[in-house]
Amino acid sequence: MLTMQDALIALTRYWTEHGCMIVQPMNTEVGAGTLNPATALRVLGPEPWRVAYAEPSVRPDDSRYGDNPNRLQTHTQFQVILKPEPGDPQELYLGSLAALGIDIGAHDVRFVEDNWASPALGAWGLGWEVWLDGLEITQFTYFQQSGGMTLDPVSVEITYGMERIIMALQGVSHFKDIAYAPGISYGEAFGQAEYEMSRYYLDDADIAANRVLFDTYATEADRLIEARLPVPAHSYVLKCSQAFNVLDARGAVSTTERAQAFTRMRNLAHSVAELWAQRREELGYPLSTATATATLSSPEPAAAPSSSPQPAAPPAPSLDDPADLAFEIGVEELPPAEVTRAAEAVRASLTEKLAATRLRHGDITVLSAPRRIAAIVADVQPREIDEEQAIRGPRLSAAYDDDGNPTKAALGFARGQGIDVTELRPLTFGGGTYAGFVKHVPGRPAGQVLAAVLPAVVAELRADRNMRWSAPGLSYSRPIRWLLALLGPYQVPFTIAGIASRPVTRVHRTAPEPAITVTDAAGYLPVLRAHSIESDASVRRSRILADAARLAATAGGQIDPDGEQAVIDEVTNLVEDPVAILGSFDTGYLDLPADILTTVMKKHQRYLPVRAAGGELLPHFITIANGECDHDLVRGGNEAVLRARYEDAAFFWRADLAKPLEEMQKRLAQLTFETQLGSVAARAARIAAIAAALADHLGLPADERAVLRRAAELAKFDLGSAMVAELPSLAGVMAREYARHAGEPEPVAEALFEMELPRHAGDAIPRGRPGAILALADRLDLLTGLFAIGAEPTGSSDPFGLRRAALGLLAVLRAHPGLRRLTVAEGLAIAAAVQPIPADRQLDEVLDFIGRRFDQLMLDQGHPAASIRAVRNLVSTPARAEQTLHQLAELLLTPEGQELAAAIQRVRRILPDAATAGFDPALFDSPAEHALQSALGKVSEATGPDTGLRRFAAEAATLTGPINDFFDQVLVMAEDPAVKANRLGLLASVYHLAERQLDWEQLP
Amino acid sequence: MLTMQDALIALTRYWTEHGCMIVQPMNTEVGAGTLNPATALRVLGPEPWRVAYAEPSVRPDDSRYGDNPNRLQTHTQFQVILKPEPGDPQELYLGSLAALGIDIGAHDVRFVEDNWASPALGAWGLGWEVWLDGLEITQFTYFQQSGGMTLDPVSVEITYGMERIIMALQGVSHFKDIAYAPGISYGEAFGQAEYEMSRYYLDDADIAANRVLFDTYATEADRLIEARLPVPAHSYVLKCSQAFNVLDARGAVSTTERAQAFTRMRNLAHSVAELWAQRREELGYPLSTATATATLSSPEPAAAPSSSPQPAAPPAPSLDDPADLAFEIGVEELPPAEVTRAAEAVRASLTEKLAATRLRHGDITVLSAPRRIAAIVADVQPREIDEEQAIRGPRLSAAYDDDGNPTKAALGFARGQGIDVTELRPLTFGGGTYAGFVKHVPGRPAGQVLAAVLPAVVAELRADRNMRWSAPGLSYSRPIRWLLALLGPYQVPFTIAGIASRPVTRVHRTAPEPAITVTDAAGYLPVLRAHSIESDASVRRSRILADAARLAATAGGQIDPDGEQAVIDEVTNLVEDPVAILGSFDTGYLDLPADILTTVMKKHQRYLPVRAAGGELLPHFITIANGECDHDLVRGGNEAVLRARYEDAAFFWRADLAKPLEEMQKRLAQLTFETQLGSVAARAARIAAIAAALADHLGLPADERAVLRRAAELAKFDLGSAMVAELPSLAGVMAREYARHAGEPEPVAEALFEMELPRHAGDAIPRGRPGAILALADRLDLLTGLFAIGAEPTGSSDPFGLRRAALGLLAVLRAHPGLRRLTVAEGLAIAAAVQPIPADRQLDEVLDFIGRRFDQLMLDQGHPAASIRAVRNLVSTPARAEQTLHQLAELLLTPEGQELAAAIQRVRRILPDAATAGFDPALFDSPAEHALQSALGKVSEATGPDTGLRRFAAEAATLTGPINDFFDQVLVMAEDPAVKANRLGLLASVYHLAERQLDWEQLP
Repeated sequence: MLTMQDALIALTRYWTEHGCMIVQPMNTEVGAGTLNPATALRVLGPEPWRVAYAEPSVRPDDSRYGDNPNRLQTHTQFQVILKPEPGDPQELYLGSLAALGIDIGAHDVRFVEDNWASPALGAWGLGWEVWLDGLEITQFTYFQQSGGMTLDPVSVEITYGMERIIMALQGVSHFKDIAYAPGISYGEAFGQAEYEMSRYYLDDADIAANRVLFDTYATEADRLIEARLPVPAHSYVLKCSQAFNVLDARGAVSTTERAQAFTRMRNLAHSVAELWAQRREELGYPLSTATATATLSSPEPAAAPSSSPQPAAPPAPSLDDPADLAFEIGVEELPPAEVTRAAEAVRASLTEKLAATRLRHGDITVLSAPRRIAAIVADVQPREIDEEQAIRGPRLSAAYDDDGNPTKAALGFARGQGIDVTELRPLTFGGGTYAGFVKHVPGRPAGQVLAAVLPAVVAELRADRNMRWSAPGLSYSRPIRWLLALLGPYQVPFTIAGIASRPVTRVHRTAPEPAITVTDAAGYLPVLRAHSIESDASVRRSRILADAARLAATAGGQIDPDGEQAVIDEVTNLVEDPVAILGSFDTGYLDLPADILTTVMKKHQRYLPVRAAGGELLPHFITIANGECDHDLVRGGNEAVLRARYEDAAFFWRADLAKPLEEMQKRLAQLTFETQLGSVAARAARIAAIAAALADHLGLPADERAVLRRAAELAKFDLGSAMVAELPSLAGVMAREYARHAGEPEPVAEALFEMELPRHAGDAIPRGRPGAILALADRLDLLTGLFAIGAEPTGSSDPFGLRRAALGLLAVLRAHPGLRRLTVAEGLAIAAAVQPIPADRQLDEVLDFIGRRFDQLMLDQGHPAASIRAVRNLVSTPARAEQTLHQLAELLLTPEGQELAAAIQRVRRILPDAATAGFDPALFDSPAEHALQSALGKVSEATGPDTGLRRFAAEAATLTGPINDFFDQVLVMAEDPAVKANRLGLLASVYHLAERQLDWEQLP
Repeated sequence: MLTMQDALIALTRYWTEHGCMIVQPMNTEVGAGTLNPATALRVLGPEPWRVAYAEPSVRPDDSRYGDNPNRLQTHTQFQVILKPEPGDPQELYLGSLAALGIDIGAHDVRFVEDNWASPALGAWGLGWEVWLDGLEITQFTYFQQSGGMTLDPVSVEITYGMERIIMALQGVSHFKDIAYAPGISYGEAFGQAEYEMSRYYLDDADIAANRVLFDTYATEADRLIEARLPVPAHSYVLKCSQAFNVLDARGAVSTTERAQAFTRMRNLAHSVAELWAQRREELGYPLSTATATATLSSPEPAAAPSSSPQPAAPPAPSLDDPADLAFEIGVEELPPAEVTRAAEAVRASLTEKLAATRLRHGDITVLSAPRRIAAIVADVQPREIDEEQAIRGPRLSAAYDDDGNPTKAALGFARGQGIDVTELRPLTFGGGTYAGFVKHVPGRPAGQVLAAVLPAVVAELRADRNMRWSAPGLSYSRPIRWLLALLGPYQVPFTIAGIASRPVTRVHRTAPEPAITVTDAAGYLPVLRAHSIESDASVRRSRILADAARLAATAGGQIDPDGEQAVIDEVTNLVEDPVAILGSFDTGYLDLPADILTTVMKKHQRYLPVRAAGGELLPHFITIANGECDHDLVRGGNEAVLRARYEDAAFFWRADLAKPLEEMQKRLAQLTFETQLGSVAARAARIAAIAAALADHLGLPADERAVLRRAAELAKFDLGSAMVAELPSLAGVMAREYARHAGEPEPVAEALFEMELPRHAGDAIPRGRPGAILALADRLDLLTGLFAIGAEPTGSSDPFGLRRAALGLLAVLRAHPGLRRLTVAEGLAIAAAVQPIPADRQLDEVLDFIGRRFDQLMLDQGHPAASIRAVRNLVSTPARAEQTLHQLAELLLTPEGQELAAAIQRVRRILPDAATAGFDPALFDSPAEHALQSALGKVSEATGPDTGLRRFAAEAATLTGPINDFFDQVLVMAEDPAVKANRLGLLASVYHLAERQLDWEQLP
């Protein structure tokens, strides 16, 4: 059996054989191998660096006294840094799995999008979790930034989670059972430390002492930065971070303190990084010597896998007949969303770029899969079509002398154009006649055109989030590693950023021959299919649905293609060769709420749940492997992963059910919400008070009020549960579950759930009014409180999620017309009244903050900025503001509407600032005045401030004619001041009426 | 080339193959691998444990900015713990060197005594430095105690100094030039960190911050001990230690603070160790399960090397003829001093134990070498001689009845003795006659006798410092690993502590067959010699002298057998097969003072210096290797080691010479001596002031006074030199050198040197008076100052070396009769007057402390305790006290002296406490009284208080007769009170005279 220490030695050996140096773990506590200066500092700057090391990684928050089978306060990472990224890091990585004795052909190894960011370090990168039969065993990241600095060259970071890998390989279900070394288990070697360090982090660490440590470390780091010593400074930043983590695990960090500490640590990390980079430059980059570079770089060539055959297709000559183009952009596993987006982008780009040439072609088909974007262009003509081009010379009169002989000008022109002067003939341009000639411009050969177009398509590829790698000038979601371009049987030769097109595609990495030469464009897709690669997402999706349905049926169940659409879309783009495998789990777990089970299955594992006809969950799941594998092995691995996750969940579920709701609620008093704003319990009490006041304001019926009162009493209690502490995304969901189990009435349980809605953009909105009111109270409390202490969001920093809160508030108010009686301003005033500190003075700021969120929402919905400005005054009743906005859009679509608007604007524009509404009909001297007064009177009677723009417009349409007549027939600016004032007063009255609906001034 | 990382991997592999588990370095800074809990805690208690790991070891004090080729603030240890020690750890260790590619047959590998103790950890062990061609590459220790707890079983700790090993193997002379990994040097990988961390430790660490850290860590450790969590507590003890080391490197720790900090850390370490041991017991010793024990123990048998042949000699039967006994106790390398001591001890023990038997034998010869004690007993008789034993039965009268028939008593006695009653005969015992018989007790066979005697000899072996290992019941300087006992051709079979005697000896470990069967006692020494093992120290010594002289001659030089006696004695017992090798060093180093060169050669390297006929050093040295080897390789290695050491010294020498003396002296102000007593500069000023006062007191002549004044001005300046900072043992030596170079007069330079004398027991004493007075002033200042602040030594703790100071003071005063005019009490009063705090009240205490040192000195010289007590009153003039003691001893050897003493005691005993001297001759009424008066008068005139005992006794001899006559003829206790008082007054006068010389009451 491979012991854990064998595995560490095997990895050490493998990576030294691949040019890495070995260093020791950091001699101060670190949360991850990334923080070791061998990564954190060495990835900065231009020097090459290849390193591997084990790193005991300390996560005080993960302390579980050694009781949790999968979670340890100290776990062992094995960390590899390859700088610059060598071009084939995934292949190198897979080689290391083989070195561990893992048969990667039998297992399901997948690269699942997972990007990494450490705001505290000012660092981020793009990459994947590597899954082994559903188990995350490695984090694989292309480092883009560290210490706030952009990295050039880019490093690849490979971080193995050793305990998880070994548990899977040894088939044990508790980390303590790992065979660590011959005859000694992990538990025997490290169990006591695991227990005791957990005790320290969770129970016994002295909070005051650790605060002193945090400050002392931070101050020392500051001094060392001042002294230009990045190495000891970095060490103190790490110590700082550990002290913070200890405080955090002890529950001693308020949200404000967290934000402050993060700011402090981030600033320190940035300064250290900058200083390191400067110092290396000052030292003349000791490692960028030729020797070092030569020997530190990969012993294998960094290009395509070495087993790939040499190009077989000749470079494209001129063709005689139309041919198909096969163009493949080979990438490392794209994020699922990008797989779809990439196909669209390439289609558009190719279409547009070809249209700009004179090359004619047939249909363009673009397919995509995680590792490729494949474009097939049918019937590409051999050449661009030719062109006749009229070339203008001197005016005819100046081209020939009186004798009809060519002048010097004509001779010069002909010479310049490379033609004989006799070829000139009179040509008419515009009005004049010139000496000139018609030039025949032949089209370029298709190969030449494509050799220019295709690299341009590649160069312009952009994703939602882009990265750089060792391909200067390119920037995309993941590295582009190969390019295939065949025009019929010929290569389209081009090179971009060091990548040359070759007639070679790549199939499964585990295939006997992972690189396959394609001899003809027409053969491209068949070659892929022959090697089980399906580029067509719709085919993959159909296969998944069909196979999953078939497998589900074998277990007496079915899947729900509509309900699971999101996860089906995701897995479709996680594999190139979907292979559905049915797995099972213990029926005992079905006692857990279905929400928990499906959340884990879909969100964490990308499994399809299997349901009975009635929709109830069955104890099965379907995972979609990438390509053929040993089904039993893969099933077993996935089942073990799910079992571990469910075991965790079941543990928390049972622990929570054993407690009365009040006991969980009591814990809220120990959770700090914010220093000045008190505990979470205090916040929950405020929410209850605000909800009660809102109910009064809205005159809530007694039955709903009873529900609200009870739900408010229990507000947030589930934050005191073990489950939510573990899986915070289940807040609200668990409140509903636990309330039900405790015998609370269903409406109360529902309200407790709904008060957390919406949790993110696109989430559901509370349906019931008690839930909606609680949701409002929650967000009103958050906004007024945090603004009162001056913790409003700045720039990109919004640690309390106030933007999300404002959007949630707007969403609830927009969704519940029944709550329209409450304005945002009123709600804020109610919330301000219960804050522990004065909060009134910031309310305008809060309202404006909410208004800006509303503006952004409306812009995103496509409303013109001017229209949004026009309804801005209504934002305190966002439902009305939005309605008005929609009605304004309608209004401006109809001729009547446009005329009305124009008429109102005409009125507005003539009114001086000082004009006040009101008039004396006795001063009228024309029928138009009387007509307008009469129309005005009717509209005034029929509408009010809350009428709504649509009805107002319908009524006010009768004003358009009279207004226009008035302007045609009446001189507003009469000589008699009284008459003039009276006429302006009449118009002001008209505008006053319109103004209640809209700020017309904002409209163009 | 073997890179450093290759070496780490090779060691990792080797030790895992030998049953070790691998752990990671500690994730907080440690000064050595020993501190990692995988050693510090795991060596405690009964559980088996085998572990290996690399440990970056941080020594802030060793910071040199990366400039020193051999010294780093962080060096890499590779640490191995084998628990229990497996019986063959040296062989396992040598195997690991082979795994590093070291040809141990070609190199000179030696185990040189080096014991280890960490008072701060309450830990110690015995063992060796392992030398590779003179370079210390490994520390090898049998752990005896840790955290104040005795270890059972004993662990063996092997600590490789990786940088040094690799520098030697790669033949580079600066650590930065080590090839760390392919294409990257150590300097490239770690140079910047080395520089920056040096900056931190030496210049930039904030002292206040590190004090805060120290206290915070210590307090947290205390709390965690309270909470019974040894693992986190240990981590905080380590942090504590690092903070202390930082403060120390910054020069911020006074001696008092150091003592306090050490006490605090030691107490913490003890508590952690005890707690760990308790917790493991409470946990039921998880590792002492059968599985763990079985697989963690050595895969090889722990006994003799497996290549050793099976026993060839049969067990001893009864012999017919006398035979020789060969008895070998095989040990691991004994310390040189023990090699000699062991031979004597075995000779004595064997002689005594055989004498207690009836086994006759010839001469006993005991030889010894580092790995063996060999006893040859000639002509051992086949058996013990028989014995005739008279056995007493009942009284004859009770044995036979009147008819001459045996009585029941006689019958019973005979039955009890197993004889027939007819065998009884009359035997006379004392005065009576008894029935009895003469029993013939036959002697036991020699083999049987020896099988009892020899293990007893082994069991009683004791050294100066003893250790335990895996041999229960044995305790010796180093482990006993094998026993050979041959009586002629036969084995003497016995087993002690699991070690069975076998007819097998061991020769060089690098020999093709390291274990050799011996077939006959007579063949034992020839077998050893045939394998180049010389057990006879005198032969080894002669060989060394002869070979060294021969080699020295080839270099035109000679060695100085008398001058280098100590190092010759040492190397004689460091090898079993001396092989002299001549090495050379660059003549440039001869510019350094010879003291530096020879100190390094002899003290650090055990080399013999080579000198020209005139005594000047030549650029050569002789090292004594253990057994044949590749001379060029070994020479080269030793030369490199010496070069590195000299390079260091030369660097400091040059740096110091570049500075004026005053500049070095200025640094003293920055060196804290003691918080309350100020800087070293303040102490030097006090010494100067005290010396001036002493000179006044003693009336020093003007010329000596001038020397003293200048030397006092410069006192201790060399403590500010780089050389002394590096090699503190050269304090004084360097003062003399630097003073000479600075042009100071020779007597001043000499006085600066002499003021440091004596530096240790047996060291030279100042010859000149200026030096002697400075030496006194130095020690008087130390003693008064430290007692004044209450820092007197307690128990075993004497951090300021006050005992040594008191002994030095006594030595100087005893050696300089010219200083007799100064009493210790006067000297202390002078010193007290210049202390920065009141110091008078403790002077009696100091004097008593010095007196106790004097007592101990005299006891060690063999004076009887009573005599010492008798001169105790004179201790303030120690020279006189000692003289008196010697004279007292002489006195008591002569009959006259004894009679005088007896007479004086007779006088003393009769005197009541109240008796006062003085008498009235008018009241005399006998000639004896007059005679005594007359004699008294003469003696009184001839002697005074400072006469000295010898002269006093010579004069007072005339008193003996008159005193005795007085007692014979005069009734002291006369009836007339006046007469009685007068007689007592006369006797009191006599005693008063005697009392000035000695406290006679203390004599028996």
